Amino acid sequence: MKKKMKTIPVKSVKENYKIVIGRGLLAGCGRLVSGIFQPGARIMVVSQAKIDNYARRAAASLEEKGFKIFFHRLPDGERAKSGHELLKLLHTLLSKGFERKDGIVAVGGGVVSDLSGFAASVYLRGIRYVNIATTLLAQVDSSIGGKTGINLSEGKNLMGAFYPPALVISDIDLLRSLPPRELRASLAEAVKYGVIRDAGLFAFLEENTGKILRKDPAALERIVTASAGIKAGVVSRDEFETRGERIILNYGHTFGHGIENASKYKKIVHGEAVAIGMAMAAHLAVEVGICSPRLALRQLALLKRLELPVAVDALEIRTASILRAMMQDKKKSKGRLRFVLPERIGKVTVKTGIPAGEIRNILRLFGSK
Amino acid sequence: MKKKMKTIPVKSVKENYKIVIGRGLLAGCGRLVSGIFQPGARIMVVSQAKIDNYARRAAASLEEKGFKIFFHRLPDGERAKSGHELLKLLHTLLSKGFERKDGIVAVGGGVVSDLSGFAASVYLRGIRYVNIATTLLAQVDSSIGGKTGINLSEGKNLMGAFYPPALVISDIDLLRSLPPRELRASLAEAVKYGVIRDAGLFAFLEENTGKILRKDPAALERIVTASAGIKAGVVSRDEFETRGERIILNYGHTFGHGIENASKYKKIVHGEAVAIGMAMAAHLAVEVGICSPRLALRQLALLKRLELPVAVDALEIRTASILRAMMQDKKKSKGRLRFVLPERIGKVTVKTGIPAGEIRNILRLFGSK
Repeated sequence: MKKKMKTIPVKSVKENYKIVIGRGLLAGCGRLVSGIFQPGARIMVVSQAKIDNYARRAAASLEEKGFKIFFHRLPDGERAKSGHELLKLLHTLLSKGFERKDGIVAVGGGVVSDLSGFAASVYLRGIRYVNIATTLLAQVDSSIGGKTGINLSEGKNLMGAFYPPALVISDIDLLRSLPPRELRASLAEAVKYGVIRDAGLFAFLEENTGKILRKDPAALERIVTASAGIKAGVVSRDEFETRGERIILNYGHTFGHGIENASKYKKIVHGEAVAIGMAMAAHLAVEVGICSPRLALRQLALLKRLELPVAVDALEIRTASILRAMMQDKKKSKGRLRFVLPERIGKVTVKTGIPAGEIRNILRLFGSK
Repeated sequence: MKKKMKTIPVKSVKENYKIVIGRGLLAGCGRLVSGIFQPGARIMVVSQAKIDNYARRAAASLEEKGFKIFFHRLPDGERAKSGHELLKLLHTLLSKGFERKDGIVAVGGGVVSDLSGFAASVYLRGIRYVNIATTLLAQVDSSIGGKTGINLSEGKNLMGAFYPPALVISDIDLLRSLPPRELRASLAEAVKYGVIRDAGLFAFLEENTGKILRKDPAALERIVTASAGIKAGVVSRDEFETRGERIILNYGHTFGHGIENASKYKKIVHGEAVAIGMAMAAHLAVEVGICSPRLALRQLALLKRLELPVAVDALEIRTASILRAMMQDKKKSKGRLRFVLPERIGKVTVKTGIPAGEIRNILRLFGSK
């Protein structure tokens, strides 16, 4: 069965790579990966129990192409991103005789690719890895751009590397099994891409809410392709977050990370925190005179139609806790927070020096205690 | 006091940098580092107890330029290159509020820069670091080229990154206090540069053995400048060891690593193992018809005049142990060892597929049991 697929190129100082998007790609991933590793190379398929089924299907296709397949299963959830799990994977690679020409194929969402990519970056000072993105969040965001890492006791992603994958495979068919809450949370990132760079995508999301929430494959493919295209462009131009462009991907995340952290990553998932963060950021933009109230309301309406939360009331978290967590942001500069704020749908700007009082007001307005 | 200094540029896909070589540079390092970090940035001076004196002098100069100075002391010796020490340094950076604009100044030899550079590469996905190389081995070799890393239970440098320093400072005056054995061991690497790329350097080493062993500053500066220049050129063209050129820096190291490992890193230091490894490699080159016996003897004579060991008799190690250790080499490809072998002084070639029997013979000839 021949499938149409789209290919998006990504630039990296280390090695350019491609994102391949389409339907039915998993069963044929061996052919795609053949261009990446030498014939007969060892491949460690890294996955989690809940996506074991996909990992086995990927492995079967890889094995057919003559690769030597090994499996490594990470624990479920965020606890897979620990120093302990990193070392476990490195020791497994060593015990199986992996050399620099061998590699990792990460089958899963952001947790799997973050840990696998970081392990690939440090094993023998670097081997190649491929991301097979099985979630919408991974397909629109985390599988692209080479941000890898693990959590430390002080916070998330504090130890890591910018290390590009050699290939990203996004099979739309895998999204069929996505739980509704995860689907909606991932759509928050798609809304983000619309606001920061693509008014057409934003309008598409507005006009196709029903189809999207029903997981219509064509609609999802449109969203993945547009989002991945924007992310690919941004990270190609600002791979290491040093040129001021990549920061725009952080829209909704400064508030969002603060909310996630203050609620101890319970009750709320990342995308939901980003949705609330975007609602707050747009309101802040109105307050400081950067955008019209119409924009903030239009975004609020879309988030609600996508059944995403837009306030923190239900979380029962304190304003001071969110503020403190926000101040630990990796991307703050000279101790000051940088906010990405919308000017209009499709265009954002970066603003520093917003008084803490202003931020506190916004947090309270959106339901913090 | 104005000092003449030499500057050697190094290319990196991440960020080009400079090696600065001269006398009296430590006391003025603040001025050199001013170009690297923003005014007022936090700097973690990482060092070891035995070089505390240099660390304090560097810190004084950095403080004068307005940097906020913090100290972190690693345990002495190779045990500083552990996962435990890596995490300790990362937690210290977090507790002192280090952000992406802040950085590390590593004052010491290879152990300090390997650990510091790796910590810099993974902290918040990367901050900048400067190497102040206090040993001859660091000045001619380990401070340059961005190879960073730590040891795992299975072996040395198995976890790490290619992550370039932002600046390398080599103050020749610091070599005055170098213990004689360490001086000689480092000279093995200088001999290596002569054999692989620089017949003039090789002849200089032959003709100035007395001066060099007396630590004559002008002679040492000549050696550091020539060696650093060769290494800078090689790593500029083949940063990630993927283009086949950087492998030549491994001359003497395939045998050398095997010897070090088989003797459990006791009784022998790295440079001594490299000296023996070069003696073996040259002999192997004669055996397989790549170079003349004259070359092997000329190199043997120089190593002996530099009071370096050229056989393993005194180590009492088994041939099979060395062979087994050699087979774990990070740089082996498809399970086969690659040997860098001299064709003439100043030119080497890479050879694979040498039968294990041949290697065993060489090892026995040089005194393994």
